[in-house]
Amino acid sequence: MLELKTPYLLFIGHATDPLSIKMAKSAADWSPEKCVGEVRSHGCTVTTGMPAMTIAEGIAAGARSLVLGFANSGGHLDEQWLPMIHEAIAAGLDIISGLHDRLNAYEELVNAAAQSNVRLLDIRHPTKRLKTGKGYRREGKRVLTVGTDCSVGKMYTSLSLTREMQRRGILATFRATGQSGILVAGEGIAVDCVVADFIAGAVEELAPANAANHWDIIEGQGSLFHPAFAGVSLGLLHGAQADALVVCHALGRSSMRAIDNRPLPSLTETIALNEQMARVTNPNAKVIGIAVNTSSVTAAEAQDYCRQVEQELGLPCVDPIRHGVAPLVDQLEEN
Amino acid sequence: MLELKTPYLLFIGHATDPLSIKMAKSAADWSPEKCVGEVRSHGCTVTTGMPAMTIAEGIAAGARSLVLGFANSGGHLDEQWLPMIHEAIAAGLDIISGLHDRLNAYEELVNAAAQSNVRLLDIRHPTKRLKTGKGYRREGKRVLTVGTDCSVGKMYTSLSLTREMQRRGILATFRATGQSGILVAGEGIAVDCVVADFIAGAVEELAPANAANHWDIIEGQGSLFHPAFAGVSLGLLHGAQADALVVCHALGRSSMRAIDNRPLPSLTETIALNEQMARVTNPNAKVIGIAVNTSSVTAAEAQDYCRQVEQELGLPCVDPIRHGVAPLVDQLEEN
Repeated sequence: MLELKTPYLLFIGHATDPLSIKMAKSAADWSPEKCVGEVRSHGCTVTTGMPAMTIAEGIAAGARSLVLGFANSGGHLDEQWLPMIHEAIAAGLDIISGLHDRLNAYEELVNAAAQSNVRLLDIRHPTKRLKTGKGYRREGKRVLTVGTDCSVGKMYTSLSLTREMQRRGILATFRATGQSGILVAGEGIAVDCVVADFIAGAVEELAPANAANHWDIIEGQGSLFHPAFAGVSLGLLHGAQADALVVCHALGRSSMRAIDNRPLPSLTETIALNEQMARVTNPNAKVIGIAVNTSSVTAAEAQDYCRQVEQELGLPCVDPIRHGVAPLVDQLEEN
Repeated sequence: MLELKTPYLLFIGHATDPLSIKMAKSAADWSPEKCVGEVRSHGCTVTTGMPAMTIAEGIAAGARSLVLGFANSGGHLDEQWLPMIHEAIAAGLDIISGLHDRLNAYEELVNAAAQSNVRLLDIRHPTKRLKTGKGYRREGKRVLTVGTDCSVGKMYTSLSLTREMQRRGILATFRATGQSGILVAGEGIAVDCVVADFIAGAVEELAPANAANHWDIIEGQGSLFHPAFAGVSLGLLHGAQADALVVCHALGRSSMRAIDNRPLPSLTETIALNEQMARVTNPNAKVIGIAVNTSSVTAAEAQDYCRQVEQELGLPCVDPIRHGVAPLVDQLEEN
């Protein structure tokens, strides 16, 4: 397995978009005990909430890995970050990257890492040979988070569900499908980075047959309605063979992630299309609830919105951060 | 660009499944002038129709490249083929592979190729950096072949459409999305082999904005109903932003390709789902006809079947090999 060295020092560069530091923020939110602080570049306007520090200060605080905790839409390595990465390597830190571009493709980084006896860990890239999917019925229960868009809280919802289920004594395992989830869980497969033929097969391997009363909580990716990423979402949906789906949504977003002038689909459309497509591999798949990121509105407005959705759809609707996910887990226990 | 050296010598190994030699057969059918013959191993029960020969005979006939012209479902390199590949390298042939596994990952092949001054060409692997898709409306017209299943004639239909359109003086370009099409066209992007995040973006790049009266004929892959490959099909559908879709089907197939006990969807279901999903990036997308591989039945039965489909669906239905695709191009010209 990966054996990521902790604690992490979270490098968020010159990020100005809170969504672009999702990976660093996820680690800070879900594994704060594994993080010492964040490193920021000039112009950075967002934060993980961790104390800002230099690389030297991070090392003094005990850091053992530098996490490249932010990404542009394409996941490319911006070469202006290279000096910072070299500094961390020279200081003896492993480098953990969730980018599409591989640290290991930069010969000067590979050489520097060898010289300093540290590792370059491209955690988004699959390390083993994958198979194509089959769609054959397998034992165990699975829940998948799906979305109206990218970056709407599928990982947070999945982790919240896992913790609440474990708290209730339900056998439950979080299955990470993206670099942020992998950083939190310590293992997983970044399905957006596998060769396209293997998307569904990767998920079949990530969430294999299990005991009949065991739940895999599979982190979703993208949206069936997203013009760039729907292929990933569909392969993940087919491979997951989920019994239960939770639709995730971000309140107040005007256009789909990284696309101009593309309104998000409605919850009703999202439920209908995901159930329709999921049934290719699980005829009983159904949406059991809604999880909404309501951070753009007041607590009272969030309550009103969730109650309204519940009335309209007849499904529980919560903000996992504000309200917890107990009503969603109640639904899973009933099914 | 690729600059594949012709003529090809087609290696089909010990294949027994006609569909597994699709790549070799495509070159023999669509570019016979570029092929000298086929090389068969013991136990091989299928043929491209080209004369069987040894590697030495192939070289005597002028061959300049050995094509690994067959594949299992996973696209893995079977190590029992290595001696044959070494023989061809030693004899001075370039090796062209359409497998997922890279020839260039085998150090002993890389060394042998360097020694013999020949190239190992993994044509399924993208050679340039791709971007994520956007779905923004672009100029030019596009037709995409879609299918009830994998291996139902999407490439043959696409090539047939291209040649018929060019014959009529319509500006038309075939856009290859798989290794067989790339072998025929000499260029393209194997979309099943790109990193999953880039499926739609790869197709946007492969079939970019063009003159308003120019048609790209984009080769489809897989099926939205296939439990392994639907993600590829959906990304391709979104990236293609097709004005016109042609549904391809293979008559008499009892289960989806490489999957047990999974009946093919009906033509009606296939039309409805492809139109529904295509409209995410092109609200005017519509199916304009059906292309059926009728090789499992007699000519008379094929005629009956196509007439029946036409009556039921109100769309032209042809076997491109038996009947040509004129009625489909008529439809494109009307739209």
